[in-house]
Amino acid sequence: MKLLLVNGNRTRAVTAAVLAEAQATAADGTELVAVEAAFGADIVFSHAENAVATHAVLDALARHAGGCDAAILAISFDSGLAAARELLPMPVLGITEAALLTACQLARRVGVVTVGRVSSSLYAEVFAQTGLGDRIAAVGTVDMASAGEYLSPQDFDARVVAEANRLAAEAGAEAVVACGAALAGIARRARAAVAVPLVDGVGAAVRQAEALVRGGYRARARPAGPRATMAGVSAELAALFARP
Amino acid sequence: MKLLLVNGNRTRAVTAAVLAEAQATAADGTELVAVEAAFGADIVFSHAENAVATHAVLDALARHAGGCDAAILAISFDSGLAAARELLPMPVLGITEAALLTACQLARRVGVVTVGRVSSSLYAEVFAQTGLGDRIAAVGTVDMASAGEYLSPQDFDARVVAEANRLAAEAGAEAVVACGAALAGIARRARAAVAVPLVDGVGAAVRQAEALVRGGYRARARPAGPRATMAGVSAELAALFARP
Amino acid sequence: MKLLLVNGNRTRAVTAAVLAEAQATAADGTELVAVEAAFGADIVFSHAENAVATHAVLDALARHAGGCDAAILAISFDSGLAAARELLPMPVLGITEAALLTACQLARRVGVVTVGRVSSSLYAEVFAQTGLGDRIAAVGTVDMASAGEYLSPQDFDARVVAEANRLAAEAGAEAVVACGAALAGIARRARAAVAVPLVDGVGAAVRQAEALVRGGYRARARPAGPRATMAGVSAELAALFARP
Amino acid sequence: MKLLLVNGNRTRAVTAAVLAEAQATAADGTELVAVEAAFGADIVFSHAENAVATHAVLDALARHAGGCDAAILAISFDSGLAAARELLPMPVLGITEAALLTACQLARRVGVVTVGRVSSSLYAEVFAQTGLGDRIAAVGTVDMASAGEYLSPQDFDARVVAEANRLAAEAGAEAVVACGAALAGIARRARAAVAVPLVDGVGAAVRQAEALVRGGYRARARPAGPRATMAGVSAELAALFARP
Amino acid sequence: MKLLLVNGNRTRAVTAAVLAEAQATAADGTELVAVEAAFGADIVFSHAENAVATHAVLDALARHAGGCDAAILAISFDSGLAAARELLPMPVLGITEAALLTACQLARRVGVVTVGRVSSSLYAEVFAQTGLGDRIAAVGTVDMASAGEYLSPQDFDARVVAEANRLAAEAGAEAVVACGAALAGIARRARAAVAVPLVDGVGAAVRQAEALVRGGYRARARPAGPRATMAGVSAELAALFARP
Amino acid sequence: MKLLLVNGNRTRAVTAAVLAEAQATAADGTELVAVEAAFGADIVFSHAENAVATHAVLDALARHAGGCDAAILAISFDSGLAAARELLPMPVLGITEAALLTACQLARRVGVVTVGRVSSSLYAEVFAQTGLGDRIAAVGTVDMASAGEYLSPQDFDARVVAEANRLAAEAGAEAVVACGAALAGIARRARAAVAVPLVDGVGAAVRQAEALVRGGYRARARPAGPRATMAGVSAELAALFARP
Repeated sequence: MKLLLVNGNRTRAVTAAVLAEAQATAADGTELVAVEAAFGADIVFSHAENAVATHAVLDALARHAGGCDAAILAISFDSGLAAARELLPMPVLGITEAALLTACQLARRVGVVTVGRVSSSLYAEVFAQTGLGDRIAAVGTVDMASAGEYLSPQDFDARVVAEANRLAAEAGAEAVVACGAALAGIARRARAAVAVPLVDGVGAAVRQAEALVRGGYRARARPAGPRATMAGVSAELAALFARP
Repeated sequence: MKLLLVNGNRTRAVTAAVLAEAQATAADGTELVAVEAAFGADIVFSHAENAVATHAVLDALARHAGGCDAAILAISFDSGLAAARELLPMPVLGITEAALLTACQLARRVGVVTVGRVSSSLYAEVFAQTGLGDRIAAVGTVDMASAGEYLSPQDFDARVVAEANRLAAEAGAEAVVACGAALAGIARRARAAVAVPLVDGVGAAVRQAEALVRGGYRARARPAGPRATMAGVSAELAALFARP
Repeated sequence: MKLLLVNGNRTRAVTAAVLAEAQATAADGTELVAVEAAFGADIVFSHAENAVATHAVLDALARHAGGCDAAILAISFDSGLAAARELLPMPVLGITEAALLTACQLARRVGVVTVGRVSSSLYAEVFAQTGLGDRIAAVGTVDMASAGEYLSPQDFDARVVAEANRLAAEAGAEAVVACGAALAGIARRARAAVAVPLVDGVGAAVRQAEALVRGGYRARARPAGPRATMAGVSAELAALFARP
Repeated sequence: MKLLLVNGNRTRAVTAAVLAEAQATAADGTELVAVEAAFGADIVFSHAENAVATHAVLDALARHAGGCDAAILAISFDSGLAAARELLPMPVLGITEAALLTACQLARRVGVVTVGRVSSSLYAEVFAQTGLGDRIAAVGTVDMASAGEYLSPQDFDARVVAEANRLAAEAGAEAVVACGAALAGIARRARAAVAVPLVDGVGAAVRQAEALVRGGYRARARPAGPRATMAGVSAELAALFARP
Repeated sequence: MKLLLVNGNRTRAVTAAVLAEAQATAADGTELVAVEAAFGADIVFSHAENAVATHAVLDALARHAGGCDAAILAISFDSGLAAARELLPMPVLGITEAALLTACQLARRVGVVTVGRVSSSLYAEVFAQTGLGDRIAAVGTVDMASAGEYLSPQDFDARVVAEANRLAAEAGAEAVVACGAALAGIARRARAAVAVPLVDGVGAAVRQAEALVRGGYRARARPAGPRATMAGVSAELAALFARP
Repeated sequence: MKLLLVNGNRTRAVTAAVLAEAQATAADGTELVAVEAAFGADIVFSHAENAVATHAVLDALARHAGGCDAAILAISFDSGLAAARELLPMPVLGITEAALLTACQLARRVGVVTVGRVSSSLYAEVFAQTGLGDRIAAVGTVDMASAGEYLSPQDFDARVVAEANRLAAEAGAEAVVACGAALAGIARRARAAVAVPLVDGVGAAVRQAEALVRGGYRARARPAGPRATMAGVSAELAALFARP
């Protein structure tokens, strides 16, 4: 089985971190490809950057998903998830949705740790779209002073662990999701330090993608109805829109 | 006062219809500029097309909003509304949100008529984002066989009127919103035929924009925190992201 | 165009403050009339006082709305809004609803500042009736020691500003509504001191009323069905109920 | 124990029906007094009529509650319930709330039958204020051609029974509430004909009032804070507002 | 009238406390029987213990409900309420639901005090099942160090009172429910010390049961459809399942 | 890896069907054990039967989970899920929750097909506990005349397929979950006949269990606090409760 990971940011270091964690997680026989956005933000923090990233994610999927069995949107905001599920003839997963759904199988009430107060409004929209609000006990945020800081995730582990333990102790969280592509691997690195199960997105999404592919679930057919004609986008993306 | 209308579709006939209705609506002294998306779908029907349109709307705003006092997203799905409100130093309105908010001042329970079953899932997300679910009595849909049909809105008036009257009679709607940029002007053309007040998006948004500008409401400052560096987008859009 | 403002309290100083702000806000050519309740509370603080004010608002509308194009309920609790929309052959607006709907066009998440803890339960009901709970980030309250204090709104500006800034900083409010007829004008007076757009009810309602009237939206017809016969109310109110 | 029943309509025939059912229901030793509104609508159907009735209910309570142990608002819309609970030094019950709470002790999912489509919007608000939306399986309505028809409740029994049975069969209602003061007694008259427990408001409220009084639950103290000065209302109501 | 009280714990001291409070509460002529679970936990604190208690409650009902007019589940978590309402040919009440419904007739917003943080997750589920979330202002918890402490309720009165007063002052609670079978009687003992009406479950449930029985409400018939064959349960419970 | 499947019914034919589907689904190297309830209903249809099954599920887990890596509750109602997650030192999955979470990774809006109108109320509670109400587009039910019919699932395939296709066409379901242990395998057997992805519980749960075990997610520790002493239950279950 071959899985495509699409980092919706342009930063290759994040792609590398995502791919490393995916490799550490994947089953034998799972082939992995990881790419980043060809345009848009180096790192997405806000609605505006995410709006461009959503286009860039579709563009990357159009370029690289051929021959893959499933695609994983390796960006905290699951950017383009609904759109990609319309377009792609294969399962498409978002790392935040996959992590939340995994945590919901370990606990009734789930805590979430995010990085960066600047992204709070955008995260609120993402969580709302999962429809899992009733199961989210609380959202905690670890702030950061600069974008550069975001790229040194190892510096975050201790702060994410502290926040996860706080959510367990004070908000009744029975499992905690650590959001953010840059945090890839924190569940493996830090789980022993957290009082409740800790889930991160890349690990969860790789396992969920493997489960879906092995399960033979086919992608939903494209909705019937009028089709748009695309222009001014990459040839690959235009072709993806044009497939029957 | 100068208002920019951004049609998130590439179809100029829709831009023309939007501009005509805006001109028929605007107060004396309101200057209007209307543009369409430089890339993306000729007409947006679904999540995937909307994802690209969101980028295209921001791009058009970056190119044309200079010197304007407010911007109106003249696309049924309010594509890019949250993003544009982060980026632009002026009020930004969506035609569907503006129509719903207007209708909520005429009635407790509002009906909504949309065009095209293919867009139902996308409309559901748009309505959810307005947060007005408690006031939406029911959503009715007038279907269409082809995209071409969408561009002959005069053919729709009778069917939208029939659906609006049905929502008033059967679902308790006390006012009705007709969604869709291509329907611009239906409220003026058809209001006498509907048993309850009828609101369309372009008319509502122009009046709301005028009210906001006259009210002197300033746009929200950009959220503090790390900023992304944009690449691979138009120079105008990159510059907009880079403004302090 | 002629607008009627109905102060649901009996206190003329509030009527005067409301009218002054309306005059400062209204467009050229908008004629304004302001009246207060003929009976009931000098100032409404609670459910019980509001129950009488609701009757008094209808009574004042019956006496003074003739010849007007729209009516504004200039009382924080939008007292009698649903009732007035049934009875009056013109648009009727509430200042709190109008302010919230205006703020929702400036921001996704709105903060609200109210005056007087004694009114908290009543405000909660008012906000619930707007159906906008999903967009209200938080409600802050500036308390007061006496009713007299309520009538010196200039003493409140600094405290409302402080609370508005707190909601922006701590609760993620991206715009703030200052509730209360007595605070009329605070948005103009204090907007520079608040980190996010500040909206007050009288200003918002005047602009919204002008927009509705200019838009030619007709009022909803009275619901069909049996009609009650009124007795023991003012002749004007009885006549209003009796109109076909 | 002495209970006051306040019919918020001016129609004495309804008061008589309410009192008769209360007498048939009450325990030995319960004394009953029933009065109707001194002003307002002969029968309340809509928001506007209810707005006046709310004042009239408070007025009637002020005149007649002295010496009573609890008061029952014998009007379908629980008009003035929150207000009366602030003002009166005794428990105050609404017949619709009491019926719903009783039904919730017999069933998880409750159906509701109302009379008169003209009142649908008002009923929706009443049900929302009970906070019991999650337990209301469905609302059915028996329509009527005239107000006079409303006063011949015996003509309604068969239609209410049919609608109750429909809610049980089709909507999963496990108990049904028949709303409306004029339907007083239908639960006793018709229960054998309904497939699930049938509850009406007057019977439920009398029993709930007896239980509260016997339980010695004291009324909530009036909220602290500034008090309004009332004018232009009956001396009795003004005095009630003025009590410490 | 004869009422059965079923303590879902095995601890007789709790049964005795429940029975004493029921006797202090019941009307003349009400006969009371109280039993405890034949198996399961000495005291139920968590989901797992509650799962067994639910079976034990049904078992006790099967053994002891014959000849009774109504049954009360005298366990904080209303364990087995939905199940018992299916099986028993009489009204079945839960003490927490009965207390909440009683409090909702005294106040719009109700506070709840629970005992033991270990039970927080289970209580959250119980409150959700009442469907009364909109009326619960806040939940406060008095913790305890050991199960033994739970059996000395007199030691709790002061702490419950303090928490109840805190909910009234800080969370706007206008009435407070004290949850927990072991707290039986606290409303009578401590009501004078709480600023708002205080309700406990056993007292509320006895009064509600009397009201339902006196009202002649019949139990819902068992749902139609296939019936299971039970094995490995007590003969009495098997017989109850087998009744037509 | 070794997985335990617990059929909460006493019917061995269902256990066999569940095990067969699990074997068809499981990865190489996954060992499977399947047991049924030692007591309770032959087939669970209602709240009352489910209450006993919940105890029986815990009992079966206590007897058989030793040496297993995860447990799957192979009963449509996820009976005992919250309880088992407290007690067991391993991940515990419910087939309905697992199927819904899987479907949510294939589609935004999910349809659900259940078998037996008699179980509708119980299913409503199960779906509510997943917290996924916002993503459930509609629930359809295939009725059955007798319990025996339930045991011939092959007779159901065509009716479940028809209902699934109806949910896709009429309710906008983009994926469909077929609930019920007896339907094990329908996704593999019938997926080609359904217009959208079809998911059944046993297949989904086996894959999810494998993913959780491979992911090394540890079970949540038992909540701190007082512990109950169990009596009158099987020695194995008592021992499970007594583990530290």
